[in-house]
Amino acid sequence: MTGEPETPAVVIDLDIALRNIARAQAHLAARGLAIRPHIKTHKLARLARAQLDAGAVGITCQKIGEVEALLDEDPAIPDVLLTYPVLGPAKLDRLRALARRVRLSTVADSEAVVDGLAAAFAHEPQPLVVLVECDTGGRRCGVQTPAEAARLAQRIAGAPGLAFGGLMTYPAAGGHAAATAFLAAAKAAIEADGLRVPVVTSGGTPDLWQVENDGVVTEYRPGTYVYNDRSLVSRGAAELADCALRVVATVVSKPTPDRAIIDAGSKVLTSDLLGLDGYGMVVGLPDVAIDQLSEEHGRLTGKGALALAVGDRVEIVPNHACVVTNMMDAVHVRLPDGTLEPWPVTARGRVT
Amino acid sequence: MTGEPETPAVVIDLDIALRNIARAQAHLAARGLAIRPHIKTHKLARLARAQLDAGAVGITCQKIGEVEALLDEDPAIPDVLLTYPVLGPAKLDRLRALARRVRLSTVADSEAVVDGLAAAFAHEPQPLVVLVECDTGGRRCGVQTPAEAARLAQRIAGAPGLAFGGLMTYPAAGGHAAATAFLAAAKAAIEADGLRVPVVTSGGTPDLWQVENDGVVTEYRPGTYVYNDRSLVSRGAAELADCALRVVATVVSKPTPDRAIIDAGSKVLTSDLLGLDGYGMVVGLPDVAIDQLSEEHGRLTGKGALALAVGDRVEIVPNHACVVTNMMDAVHVRLPDGTLEPWPVTARGRVT
Repeated sequence: MTGEPETPAVVIDLDIALRNIARAQAHLAARGLAIRPHIKTHKLARLARAQLDAGAVGITCQKIGEVEALLDEDPAIPDVLLTYPVLGPAKLDRLRALARRVRLSTVADSEAVVDGLAAAFAHEPQPLVVLVECDTGGRRCGVQTPAEAARLAQRIAGAPGLAFGGLMTYPAAGGHAAATAFLAAAKAAIEADGLRVPVVTSGGTPDLWQVENDGVVTEYRPGTYVYNDRSLVSRGAAELADCALRVVATVVSKPTPDRAIIDAGSKVLTSDLLGLDGYGMVVGLPDVAIDQLSEEHGRLTGKGALALAVGDRVEIVPNHACVVTNMMDAVHVRLPDGTLEPWPVTARGRVT
Repeated sequence: MTGEPETPAVVIDLDIALRNIARAQAHLAARGLAIRPHIKTHKLARLARAQLDAGAVGITCQKIGEVEALLDEDPAIPDVLLTYPVLGPAKLDRLRALARRVRLSTVADSEAVVDGLAAAFAHEPQPLVVLVECDTGGRRCGVQTPAEAARLAQRIAGAPGLAFGGLMTYPAAGGHAAATAFLAAAKAAIEADGLRVPVVTSGGTPDLWQVENDGVVTEYRPGTYVYNDRSLVSRGAAELADCALRVVATVVSKPTPDRAIIDAGSKVLTSDLLGLDGYGMVVGLPDVAIDQLSEEHGRLTGKGALALAVGDRVEIVPNHACVVTNMMDAVHVRLPDGTLEPWPVTARGRVT
């Protein structure tokens, strides 16, 4: 495919994505940190492969279905960390099947999850590696204290089907110092109990370029850095030129001089605001706001008359790249020779 | 399938959906109004069929891809109104192909769209029926004045491949009086020019139960009424017992007594707030807020300790039903005998 895609479309500039991958790899490698990219941003087996080829130690997924889809497309993916508590017989069966296909580790923050994993893997040839998830300020999942982390590490280490793999956190933005303090204390407590802590893994693109080797964290799991987005530009974590993903839309109506309607609504851009005003940045039109979305309509309003006519195309850098790729069955990848190629979004919609 | 689905899952109570369909049909028929349901809420060929069987004159879609998908599953769908401006050669080719498969009408609010449609249908055996979209207060697409509507109606009527079909609006919530005034004036102006106005079509579930026959509107296009949602309950347009769609999620973490994390995040519930606080209503737990979503995590917080444990299932009525069905490859339909059956979401993700 070489022509322009029908709109709305999500277009990925492969050169920019590969440059983003290389830069993050170099940044973390220079600090002695492993990189394990989170695939939630691109959901593409081919970009996971590019991240591995650049030097990633493995990839990060959140849902079992994402791992299944990626391995179906690229069975050679060597190593996956599933940063999600797995519960219930159906999911444990699927997890067990996955562990036979790939070097797999996962996380737990409760005895219920550890005990479920232990029962499911008790008779497997290889133990499942389980890390303890720590809430270091993000206020989502995770044990609340280093002592709790140490107790859970012991429970994992003592379960026949499991092996203790270390500590995992997703810090609050700007919360890396707090995360380091928590993780250092947890690591010390676990080591005092006689266990090794092979991996301490943290993540998040907003703080990626501030990451230094703190002597505790061994591995970093950035996701959005591969594409970047308006949120990261607004935080100073990326430039517009680093944004590999753009939504291409067509002006379908110009009811008044200062209002244009585009064919991308919340079913493409999503309602994610991430603290910003409006639903995306219209490239080249800094005074234009995307001030309202319905499912199939996006409303552009300007301070005065808009220099847009029915039929014009616009490019938008969305607030949040990760959620946009989940809306599309395929993205259009701009190859280095300038042609566009549709790539099915391998792991789109895999929520279980 | 008779057991409980893996979570997160979207479960549809078919009895409630069919009752909602019957009630809206009766309400509008009693007022002499045709009903043309908008399929954006369910995106299912089988529920479109149920709406037609109940007496709908046809269905409403927004994107060509939705019509294609529905007709592929149910070629007997007789009549579709596409309430979206169609532009560009690729989409016009697809529209022409569709018009050979189904009785099709569409809308326009600009000369550019009318002229494109006219050129595409100039040599077709049957003219394409085109309605003029009017902005009666919704501030999205639509001509701005009755005089503009009359001019565009003349342009449609004068185009060889087109036939003027009437007027279409999507009013602002609570804006039906304003819509009636605009539409009556537009109709009078068009009739004064010697044209008939066969159809005047309006829509929106929030005002559905207040709709009366105003002597102007002939047809109504509600969408969300089939499932209802938290937004409609909050507006008084539905009761909880009328909500046919629920998101079923599992508590995967309980880091503190007053915080539980569920496995439904923005990839299921979406970030749509519709003016509400929080991302959905947890059925049976009125004091619990879903106060934060990330892509795969939903955070429940309570005023005190939550009566929830890791592994518990919760049911959620989402803020906005229509966007939730777009996130799922399949919904689980609870049949009248109580069993659950997965139905692929026919028109999910059809944004072009």
